[in-house]
Amino acid sequence: MREVGSRVWAVPAGRIPPHTTGPEPEFTSRDELCILNATGEEASLQITIFYTDRDPVGPYTLTVGARRVRHVRFNDLIDPEAIPMATDYAALIESSVPIVVQHVRLDSRRAEDSMFGSLGFAGEG
Amino acid sequence: MREVGSRVWAVPAGRIPPHTTGPEPEFTSRDELCILNATGEEASLQITIFYTDRDPVGPYTLTVGARRVRHVRFNDLIDPEAIPMATDYAALIESSVPIVVQHVRLDSRRAEDSMFGSLGFAGEG
Amino acid sequence: MREVGSRVWAVPAGRIPPHTTGPEPEFTSRDELCILNATGEEASLQITIFYTDRDPVGPYTLTVGARRVRHVRFNDLIDPEAIPMATDYAALIESSVPIVVQHVRLDSRRAEDSMFGSLGFAGEG
Amino acid sequence: MREVGSRVWAVPAGRIPPHTTGPEPEFTSRDELCILNATGEEASLQITIFYTDRDPVGPYTLTVGARRVRHVRFNDLIDPEAIPMATDYAALIESSVPIVVQHVRLDSRRAEDSMFGSLGFAGEG
Repeated sequence: MREVGSRVWAVPAGRIPPHTTGPEPEFTSRDELCILNATGEEASLQITIFYTDRDPVGPYTLTVGARRVRHVRFNDLIDPEAIPMATDYAALIESSVPIVVQHVRLDSRRAEDSMFGSLGFAGEG
Repeated sequence: MREVGSRVWAVPAGRIPPHTTGPEPEFTSRDELCILNATGEEASLQITIFYTDRDPVGPYTLTVGARRVRHVRFNDLIDPEAIPMATDYAALIESSVPIVVQHVRLDSRRAEDSMFGSLGFAGEG
Repeated sequence: MREVGSRVWAVPAGRIPPHTTGPEPEFTSRDELCILNATGEEASLQITIFYTDRDPVGPYTLTVGARRVRHVRFNDLIDPEAIPMATDYAALIESSVPIVVQHVRLDSRRAEDSMFGSLGFAGEG
Repeated sequence: MREVGSRVWAVPAGRIPPHTTGPEPEFTSRDELCILNATGEEASLQITIFYTDRDPVGPYTLTVGARRVRHVRFNDLIDPEAIPMATDYAALIESSVPIVVQHVRLDSRRAEDSMFGSLGFAGEG
């Protein structure tokens, strides 16, 4: 199987919707990183969160097993600190092996859902 | 006509919505690969599905005719095994000729639809 | 001003929603190409439409003026023939100068809207 | 921390939804640029807005601090002139340092929201 991906990814449009309607966890409002590690080695990730008016926070560390996918809600990144809701942020993801990143948002603040999916931006290598 | 595309594509954000409201098939909830083969040769595809906590499954084999498009619902990939609904997965698509891949989701679990469209990530070649 | 873009673009996920609810034209269901020509020369475009089970149709010809944007509904591409609604298709766009292409869908078949936006795939040059 | 991004970005699918339903500012209809500057230097941006039937307008100038993110509503770009609502436009973003750009729309014209997120197109450098 061929390797695919990059070791650096950026997601500028972060914002966690602060409310949820409907049954959880399926309809929990969320901002999510979807990470594919198609390589034969575990990926060690360091995620840095950027804000509008203060210094970046991180690294948040995470692993994605060899030949595994992991969908991570930004809501669940709590160490070194939780990301506040309804606040603009961006994420920079650095990985020890090539990975592929999509950014998905589900917003269920109103009675119906709204969602988007966007490829992350792949840096060099 | 110029050829366009890549032989390797990745889609990390897979998840098949488990319910549908509204008339089918137009409103069937789905997770879909949209594949363009603009070349003069039939494309032989091998799709591998990655999971969070078990080994990848595949290859799922598929062909897209020369100068044809094919929109494939992940729901319809059943050999070697069906992809479970409401489960995180990723897809790696390898093709014998250059193709272009978009990833579209339609979620009609509630009374109204929600959808997203995202370019896949193109690997080398 | 710097030039930006590519001369070849592909959009695999075409499908025109067949119904509309709400006031037109703002809520007309649509599948749309959004084309930026940031160069100093008029762009001559040739669009080829690919189908699942028959030969491609085209070229559809279009111009985008120097330093202009044009949002074109696929519904309005009628020469050499209209694109049928509720039918899978893909578009290949070839341009005489570098352009940038986004693909936007608005689906108002139900009482509320759903939409997506996706970058097209840029080929070489 | 590694730098990531490009100095030129294009967003062809601009259009500001003209109405809002629901509490503001969270549900204000908007068309938004999300800009990450992961470098150690302030980014000076020049944004040019392209239209369908008249000359481009700009530059709109903007800064994004070193290691900061900024989500900018096109509604808030008013100098040299406001961007009219319900009008097709495109944006070309030029930056003094590498940045990453996503394009997000929230449309709350009807009772429920609709949104999309799309990576911008990165030009050279």
